[in-house]
Amino acid sequence: MAFSGLQTVFATVAIVNCIKQFATGGNRMNESIFQACFRLFLYFGVWVVVVGFVYSQELVSGSRIGIAIHGGAGTILKENMSPEEEETYRAELREALLVGYEILKGGGSSLDAVEKAINILEDSPLFNAGKGAVFTNSGTNELDASIMDGKTLNAGAVAAVKHTKNPISLARLVMEKSPHVMLVGEGAAVFAEKLGMKPVPQEYFYTEKRWLQLQKIKAREKSVAPDKPVPRGSQSRTEKFGTVGVVALDQDGNLAAGTSTGGMTNKRFGRVGDSPIIGAGTYANNQTCAVSATGHGEYFIRGVIAYDVSALMQYGGLSLAEAADKVIREKLGAMGGSGGIIAIDREGNIAMPFNTAGMYRGYMDRNGKPVIRIYRD
Amino acid sequence: MAFSGLQTVFATVAIVNCIKQFATGGNRMNESIFQACFRLFLYFGVWVVVVGFVYSQELVSGSRIGIAIHGGAGTILKENMSPEEEETYRAELREALLVGYEILKGGGSSLDAVEKAINILEDSPLFNAGKGAVFTNSGTNELDASIMDGKTLNAGAVAAVKHTKNPISLARLVMEKSPHVMLVGEGAAVFAEKLGMKPVPQEYFYTEKRWLQLQKIKAREKSVAPDKPVPRGSQSRTEKFGTVGVVALDQDGNLAAGTSTGGMTNKRFGRVGDSPIIGAGTYANNQTCAVSATGHGEYFIRGVIAYDVSALMQYGGLSLAEAADKVIREKLGAMGGSGGIIAIDREGNIAMPFNTAGMYRGYMDRNGKPVIRIYRD
Repeated sequence: MAFSGLQTVFATVAIVNCIKQFATGGNRMNESIFQACFRLFLYFGVWVVVVGFVYSQELVSGSRIGIAIHGGAGTILKENMSPEEEETYRAELREALLVGYEILKGGGSSLDAVEKAINILEDSPLFNAGKGAVFTNSGTNELDASIMDGKTLNAGAVAAVKHTKNPISLARLVMEKSPHVMLVGEGAAVFAEKLGMKPVPQEYFYTEKRWLQLQKIKAREKSVAPDKPVPRGSQSRTEKFGTVGVVALDQDGNLAAGTSTGGMTNKRFGRVGDSPIIGAGTYANNQTCAVSATGHGEYFIRGVIAYDVSALMQYGGLSLAEAADKVIREKLGAMGGSGGIIAIDREGNIAMPFNTAGMYRGYMDRNGKPVIRIYRD
Repeated sequence: MAFSGLQTVFATVAIVNCIKQFATGGNRMNESIFQACFRLFLYFGVWVVVVGFVYSQELVSGSRIGIAIHGGAGTILKENMSPEEEETYRAELREALLVGYEILKGGGSSLDAVEKAINILEDSPLFNAGKGAVFTNSGTNELDASIMDGKTLNAGAVAAVKHTKNPISLARLVMEKSPHVMLVGEGAAVFAEKLGMKPVPQEYFYTEKRWLQLQKIKAREKSVAPDKPVPRGSQSRTEKFGTVGVVALDQDGNLAAGTSTGGMTNKRFGRVGDSPIIGAGTYANNQTCAVSATGHGEYFIRGVIAYDVSALMQYGGLSLAEAADKVIREKLGAMGGSGGIIAIDREGNIAMPFNTAGMYRGYMDRNGKPVIRIYRD
């Protein structure tokens, strides 16, 4: 490094002398004009270096904030979506992004940004989380969520909860108000009530769209093979996954990630996917990155997908983009799994790879403008 | 490699000539005796190389089998244990080890060895798994277990099941007979019955020792702080963890890991620890290792401990012993967590680090003899 620096200095001096010779043709008058120009040029260079340095220091000290969001990956094709429908999705994703971004801009924590942005998507009937969650085989809604704090590596998760309007907020309470990480089923409901979280009736989660989805799948199951077990992965290629998730970096340089879902349509037997599993669906660590996943959960659990991005960065020396790409395009693909992740590192770099037709996703660009994407574009 | 091989040959020829010159002093008679000796020496060398090669081929082709076992880590001190009590633990661990080892020796799969060895410990009232599981705050027993196949990366897990005699066997059914990885609560019970697994009443799990443990903790809680929330980790330093787990390598070179537990005494709100979490309490991958954990589960979830050993081997180039040690002694310790792991790699190397006073553990040594350890010895 020092050697190549010296080389650069010598080369520059040589080049400047050549230019000087060429420009002045040895004339003394021209030479002094050249010197004035050169000095100006030099001052400008110093100014560029100083400004660049200050800017990079700002990055390091953490004034750089960032947020990315997803609303699920799956068979999302432009030809199946009306312009109006598409705009509804875009508007909801934009709203959630802005809610999170405003918190970060005001000096709020990445945890707050993650929770509040996810609340917007949970309250929206469009996504498979909170209101609008998919139905289980027995016609109920069972919700999973998890959140992780990259600063402390604290985490909270709930699974198979039936009466919690905003599962991500309950996951945060588990993290902050209990000695545990994961609570499931009725027990989680008791904990929620104990902490003053009002239960909602199951009817709250009902949407006609999700109900019809369940009926369609059940009818198909009946017509094809009445008593055959569902083959592993049979649903993944045909259904949309509407899990939601947010990752954020705040002004203090703290990363956080959160994920919330209704799981898989027609799920049975108390099935739990990757969303409430720390390391699979959600992971955050200030040393590396924050990750939230969406897709065919079983593969994300077996591949320990969210933590794998962090491990590839920490132990393998990969950048966020390289690690995220490797995990989704190589590892998940090789396993036969489908889905995607959103990820942000401590410098605010964002990666959003997926191996499905589409993924509802968005982020704030460096100028503070929301960017929303749905298809492979 | 080829170059250094040639060098070796030339050097050997030169040395042999020197020795010949020195030993025979140029005498023809001595020279022929020397040649006979040298030929003998050469034959012996070839024999050593051939035997070594055959032996190493046997290793590579996987005839090397291995198994390790744990019955929980925690405050296990020699001064608190009678010789009879100690021998009871040793005998149970030995029995489980031998059951697993016999399966492996007979050409059975590592999955079978893991499941059947864990069944022995689940059926024993000594360990906190199956019969003898600890009690929840509400006086029930809720069991968690998981199993993973290193060959296919398939996995199965159950959490908060109340009527399953052998949760590890149910976890295996989830892996092999359902498209899912994790089933929780009542749903898992419905699945179990559907597959012909008979439920047992809650009373089956009762042991007086565990019941008294619960009463003691409850009394202490009452006397200290009636309404204060239990601080994170307050229980970890004083209680024993009796989670059980097995890791194994079979003749086909396949790794498997399994873990089964009753969780934490006095657990509330459907708390789930690391044992049923793939990546936290259990992980297996033929490319690296198989791991089963025991300890204060919340820290193992947050640290993604079981998978971390594998990631350090795969991405960081560490050996099994180095990776296992780093994860338990550095990472878990730095987080404030306590517990241990057992791990085996594809060459049959075994590591069993823990940062508590003791850990019930054992393995089969290279001569097929069981080795049982309890304390730091």
